[in-house]
Amino acid sequence: MFEAAETQREFDKATYEEALPALRERLLKAQYSMLQEARFPVVLVVAGVPCAGRGETVRALSAWMDPRHLQVHAMGSPSDEELERPPMWRFWRRLPPKGKLGVFFGSWYTQPIVSHALKKTGERRLVESLDEIRSFEQMLTDEGALLLKFWFHLTKKEQRRRLDKLWQDERTRYRVTREDRRRAAHYDEFRETSGRVLSETHAPHAPWLVLDGFDDRYRNLTAGRELADAIEGRLALPKPSNAAASPSASEQPPTRRSEPLLKNLDLTRTLPPDEYKEQLAKYQARLAQLTRKRRFAKLSGVFVFEGMDAAGKGSAIRRVTQALDARIYDVHAIAAPSEEERAQPYLWRFWRHAPRDGKIAIFDRSWYGRVLVERVEGFASGSEWRRAFDEINEFERQLQTAGNVVVKFWMQISKDKQLERFNQREETPFKRFKITPEDWRNRDKWDDYQHAASDMIERTSTASAPWTLVEAEDKAFARIKVLRSLCEAIETAL
Amino acid sequence: MFEAAETQREFDKATYEEALPALRERLLKAQYSMLQEARFPVVLVVAGVPCAGRGETVRALSAWMDPRHLQVHAMGSPSDEELERPPMWRFWRRLPPKGKLGVFFGSWYTQPIVSHALKKTGERRLVESLDEIRSFEQMLTDEGALLLKFWFHLTKKEQRRRLDKLWQDERTRYRVTREDRRRAAHYDEFRETSGRVLSETHAPHAPWLVLDGFDDRYRNLTAGRELADAIEGRLALPKPSNAAASPSASEQPPTRRSEPLLKNLDLTRTLPPDEYKEQLAKYQARLAQLTRKRRFAKLSGVFVFEGMDAAGKGSAIRRVTQALDARIYDVHAIAAPSEEERAQPYLWRFWRHAPRDGKIAIFDRSWYGRVLVERVEGFASGSEWRRAFDEINEFERQLQTAGNVVVKFWMQISKDKQLERFNQREETPFKRFKITPEDWRNRDKWDDYQHAASDMIERTSTASAPWTLVEAEDKAFARIKVLRSLCEAIETAL
Repeated sequence: MFEAAETQREFDKATYEEALPALRERLLKAQYSMLQEARFPVVLVVAGVPCAGRGETVRALSAWMDPRHLQVHAMGSPSDEELERPPMWRFWRRLPPKGKLGVFFGSWYTQPIVSHALKKTGERRLVESLDEIRSFEQMLTDEGALLLKFWFHLTKKEQRRRLDKLWQDERTRYRVTREDRRRAAHYDEFRETSGRVLSETHAPHAPWLVLDGFDDRYRNLTAGRELADAIEGRLALPKPSNAAASPSASEQPPTRRSEPLLKNLDLTRTLPPDEYKEQLAKYQARLAQLTRKRRFAKLSGVFVFEGMDAAGKGSAIRRVTQALDARIYDVHAIAAPSEEERAQPYLWRFWRHAPRDGKIAIFDRSWYGRVLVERVEGFASGSEWRRAFDEINEFERQLQTAGNVVVKFWMQISKDKQLERFNQREETPFKRFKITPEDWRNRDKWDDYQHAASDMIERTSTASAPWTLVEAEDKAFARIKVLRSLCEAIETAL
Repeated sequence: MFEAAETQREFDKATYEEALPALRERLLKAQYSMLQEARFPVVLVVAGVPCAGRGETVRALSAWMDPRHLQVHAMGSPSDEELERPPMWRFWRRLPPKGKLGVFFGSWYTQPIVSHALKKTGERRLVESLDEIRSFEQMLTDEGALLLKFWFHLTKKEQRRRLDKLWQDERTRYRVTREDRRRAAHYDEFRETSGRVLSETHAPHAPWLVLDGFDDRYRNLTAGRELADAIEGRLALPKPSNAAASPSASEQPPTRRSEPLLKNLDLTRTLPPDEYKEQLAKYQARLAQLTRKRRFAKLSGVFVFEGMDAAGKGSAIRRVTQALDARIYDVHAIAAPSEEERAQPYLWRFWRHAPRDGKIAIFDRSWYGRVLVERVEGFASGSEWRRAFDEINEFERQLQTAGNVVVKFWMQISKDKQLERFNQREETPFKRFKITPEDWRNRDKWDDYQHAASDMIERTSTASAPWTLVEAEDKAFARIKVLRSLCEAIETAL
């Protein structure tokens, strides 16, 4: 892996200074074109061996390009807000929007490599980490990001020489951190782990470039050229056609025929008022108790509500929040994405709401919009919504691994019941605004939505985060089922 | 202050249950109308004495209203990300957008009251805090927020009785925090400080409502009614006319005649290439050194660049960033606000970029847009840009108090020089996109901009954050002046 980067190639000063102006112009030009098109972001991972000049090259690239549209993220230790979320949260929150360049100095590779090389975690954890990384990078590039990964390399001997030199001079000694010394002491282990990580995460859409860190000029110029090449290459590609947004997307052949799942639900189930009242009190009290347990402060909750318009999502959510301490939950009503959200990968707007420890995030509609409304209305292309199933499963897996109790409800009603409720809404003055022409249009596509929902349920019911199907024709029955399911999920987690 | 809330008023169950449905309908209706108009946010401060039922009332309000459009912020201890910003940052980041309701359970009042009542800080600090709070609330309401402040009161005896009761029962003992006990032990001091704080921060636009916490039903119903009254009252007001946005705003009489300030700048100052090269190296090295000092890690920097189009802001910024470790700075190019930013008070989009300790935020254009482009083009109303001077001074004061080195540059060029640079830009292929029809339109209003800039400089040059006027006709001279000024400012701060 690294041998090719140990030839200690050098550029003399004249070569460097001759080449530089042209490179800088290329970089600036590429950057401005990127910005103007605002079609894709660039994510640049900077990793490698201490003393191999990572910082110097990052500084050079920043100096050559327009600093207003380039952001360097020095990923030190996570803050406490970050520690209470899934590990990838801190990277998600820093992703560059379309048109901009984000440099990750320290990245999702740091922790897995360090911890494996120092034998704090074993083979199994490394394999898992690499899987996670591959999914993440696949998602990033599927969503249009240009992803580049630079590895800065040095031989053991050269690294030792540089560290010693810094250490001997009192004025530079502070630059040698304890971490650097530890990594140098374990050079061989780091080399082995890194070599494996690089080869297993190298892919055409997420290539590693190993840079020989021996000579500053060679390293900087090579890094700059690779970056310029990559951006220019992407800009030269034809813009993707807008087939994605054509309504015909909804007419694509279904992935599976799974309607029976929803058709077989027994929508005649009801709960008489007396029983409802009693059980409502019972389960709300239980939910209140459970979420007030001390152990819950170490967990967090992500509750998802999906269903056709007027299926009773809002009123079910209200029965849940009534039982919760108002300080521990947030309800997120998901509508069309904002401008900032549209400039990011699809899941970004949901990642930003990942709850801290002890908190609950309730989603009234959610990331499943990708495989429901966006699929049916053709807002997402076929490839976009098809890969969303895996992306979503991975997202929820990360939430769960970080201690989130993930519960998902599909609230099912009949087409007749929807009509009845639409009419009711139009009669109640202050609810009238809740019903829009769009609701009526969506209703016309009832079958498409039912079909998409069935697909969704089948593809994203994982062992740890299954869908709970709620017979919602009778609101009382539905609310109790929701409350009971939440109680059970939290009990299991506690 | 509190006597009126010590009458222990009660509502019996029948009264309560009779009144409740109507109140809930009113609240929901008010909430939906607010949401539909998306014209103003509601900020509700919940404060008061432990055991007076703050949490219960917040829960009741949350249960009665639509939880999707109401967010409760339990303000516990600040996170480390918050500790490294000005104290108000954690409130700014949680402000509700227009149309939504934000409940602050724990607020900007908590720390000043606790710290004064426990005699950790004295008279002087309290007076300062109250000033800060008044400015903040004035800004919030000037920006359109509906601000309500509820204080939950209990007599000393009643509070003691409740704490004892909770404490004696093992199942509820955990609810009595150390903080509660401490506050109860100092009941009289808290009463005195709170009374004073309330009376000094009570204003028609930011009223306090003192609620007797003795009876749950009375307290909840009263709180709900006050909230409904306030929202309904605001909704009933006529919508503000769009005079604000009319271009005639730019024709308003100037606040002062201060052009000479800029006209007297000596734009003939230049720096020969040799000297420039030497001084550039010198000051960049000095800036690099200064920002790498250990003590700088306790400070942070906010550098603002303003000036006419083509005044050389971008290229000056690049000379600054070249000297900085790429990991410690962010450059924010300020253009039109995003959708999320438009739903917030004007300064929100700048508050979000307040740097952490050891970091530098560089603004290529800034909050001064309010009194420059927004004033001249009439995007801000006369009252908006006029009050912006004070708001900005207060914002910068808070940044400085929190350890930020605030440096502001106005880069001045002549109208001829601008033309020359515009023409140059149009000739350079990859810079062509930097020049837009808008730039030419702005140029037509040269005198208006110069006048607005003079006003701005006069009104916002504070002792601690003065404007540095940069003669920018010669780029070399300008860049060196910028670098030198930054070095001096940081040296002073260190």
